[in-house]
Amino acid sequence: MSAERCSPNSESVSVMSRIVRFHEIGGPEVLKIEDVAVRAPKEGEVQIRTKALGLNRAEVMFRTGQYVTDPKFPEINGYEAAGIIEKVGPGVEGLAIGDKVSVVPCFFLGQYGLHGELVNAPAFGVVKHPDNLSWEEAAATWMMFVTAYGALVDIATVQKGDVVLIRAASSSVGLAAIQIVNMLGGVSIALTRGSSKRDTLLAAGAQHVIATSEQDLVAEVRRITDGKGARMAFDPVGGPEVPKILDALVHRGIFFQYGALDFSDVQIPVLALLGNELTIRGYQLMEITQDLPRLEKAKAFILDGLASGDLKPVIGKTFKLDEIVEAHRFMESNEQVGKIVVTV
Amino acid sequence: MSAERCSPNSESVSVMSRIVRFHEIGGPEVLKIEDVAVRAPKEGEVQIRTKALGLNRAEVMFRTGQYVTDPKFPEINGYEAAGIIEKVGPGVEGLAIGDKVSVVPCFFLGQYGLHGELVNAPAFGVVKHPDNLSWEEAAATWMMFVTAYGALVDIATVQKGDVVLIRAASSSVGLAAIQIVNMLGGVSIALTRGSSKRDTLLAAGAQHVIATSEQDLVAEVRRITDGKGARMAFDPVGGPEVPKILDALVHRGIFFQYGALDFSDVQIPVLALLGNELTIRGYQLMEITQDLPRLEKAKAFILDGLASGDLKPVIGKTFKLDEIVEAHRFMESNEQVGKIVVTV
Repeated sequence: MSAERCSPNSESVSVMSRIVRFHEIGGPEVLKIEDVAVRAPKEGEVQIRTKALGLNRAEVMFRTGQYVTDPKFPEINGYEAAGIIEKVGPGVEGLAIGDKVSVVPCFFLGQYGLHGELVNAPAFGVVKHPDNLSWEEAAATWMMFVTAYGALVDIATVQKGDVVLIRAASSSVGLAAIQIVNMLGGVSIALTRGSSKRDTLLAAGAQHVIATSEQDLVAEVRRITDGKGARMAFDPVGGPEVPKILDALVHRGIFFQYGALDFSDVQIPVLALLGNELTIRGYQLMEITQDLPRLEKAKAFILDGLASGDLKPVIGKTFKLDEIVEAHRFMESNEQVGKIVVTV
Repeated sequence: MSAERCSPNSESVSVMSRIVRFHEIGGPEVLKIEDVAVRAPKEGEVQIRTKALGLNRAEVMFRTGQYVTDPKFPEINGYEAAGIIEKVGPGVEGLAIGDKVSVVPCFFLGQYGLHGELVNAPAFGVVKHPDNLSWEEAAATWMMFVTAYGALVDIATVQKGDVVLIRAASSSVGLAAIQIVNMLGGVSIALTRGSSKRDTLLAAGAQHVIATSEQDLVAEVRRITDGKGARMAFDPVGGPEVPKILDALVHRGIFFQYGALDFSDVQIPVLALLGNELTIRGYQLMEITQDLPRLEKAKAFILDGLASGDLKPVIGKTFKLDEIVEAHRFMESNEQVGKIVVTV
């Protein structure tokens, strides 16, 4: 409430700023940097002068019309940003002008879009991040760590010794999962298609790497686990590989699907499901970030890990804001290991 | 320990008794009633002079070679029996000769078989059931109620107002699920193929009945739930109907598969799994009955329900022991509503 009285948020005037917008569904080239009038933050919002933006698979899906919500043109994209608070809306506590902050994805694209130089964000997802993070790291932190934390820690409670299969392990969320499993004393097994990223994944902390197009996934997991299998799998892909992953799980193992890079039906062999009493769980990070008590626990866990150094955002490549089209194109190339970040 | 000293269990002599055995995989006709030497109960076992036997789908699958374990011939079948304790093995506490008991399925077929006149059973699954149960009801109680209880109460905690879809609702486990959901203030929706069993299911307590081959399952569930969907589904079948059932669930709904009457893969539409953050859970009652603290909770819940009259075993048809072949044949006809019981 003090912020409301002291800050210039009673100005309801809009301010012009450069914002990434798109006016139609399409390839990276539909993204345009435009001068847009940004309205003042409303109740429960803050306005952030951004320093760095995080790029996610979700923004590609939103732009191409494959996201859970459809864009309404002209549309603003973007889940992640870090920067300095410039205005504070009514009713916001604990945040003030000048704070260095980053934003936890706690909304659906279409409700907010953070890819621009001056953006509004819901205050409950805005975090004053530790000083040891650069702007780029802060913009890269929340999607990757909260997504992995929510499934592996909040829902499935990874314990010391638990073996976790991490598919698409070179994605930012995959790398976050490796770090979280290691931090909790678990055994991280990175799954990657070919072996070209093997050394990078080992360097990123993966305790084991299985190249699924070259090795027998089930046999390798059995070998690593002395025949027992993995307690959980964390998969943003789905599709025809899933039965093999299920086959590599222990009795009462958990399979998390947190993305749909493959749109085909997941085929569950019924005797594996029943005989092994498996759990197949669809999961999205909004389960955590739109539930305040769980969100607060997530923030605390991740801030602890960042402070201790157990967790560290992995930045694959950075682009400038003017290169936003190239940044999206690079995301679609699947070449990156870690987060794609855009500096402002 | 006192039982050990006072009872004649130090006699290690075998006793001849009539037992249902089979010497090969096959139809009901492979079942033979034979005079067999029944060994004395070992440590942790009791010997029961049976009065009634419960018949389950599992015994049909064991006889036909489709069960999770394979028979070793000559094999004894049977998960459920009620009767009077005749001998008590070493180390058994709380049970004595003359007790009227029934057996909770807490083993795999092949480890024990209860279909005979004199059988051994593991004491931790043997319950002194309430006097208001007949022998037939006691033999029918545990598989149906523990199976339904384990998924709906132990794992998913049915709450007042929760809507539960119960597939194959006229099976004994389906009827038990209806009673448990009603007892806890939930909304029981029975799913049955045609409408021939509609009135019987309504009379058995189902609050709603949907004939899936005649009605639009998803539309009906939406209508009954004001568009919200069901919180959980409880299904012993699987197969091609599953996607429709998933579509009738709420956000974060739970689908339990507890049998595999259809052996085809379960097809999970990925956007339902992910967008609705569904849980698909393979479940077998051994999860409860081989975990002592959970088994004790299950017994207490069911004994309470039996005492209050909220739970009451439903007997579809009774046969005599000499008609065991006909009893199995009737099970395979799928005509029954409720439990098939064999009197001894």
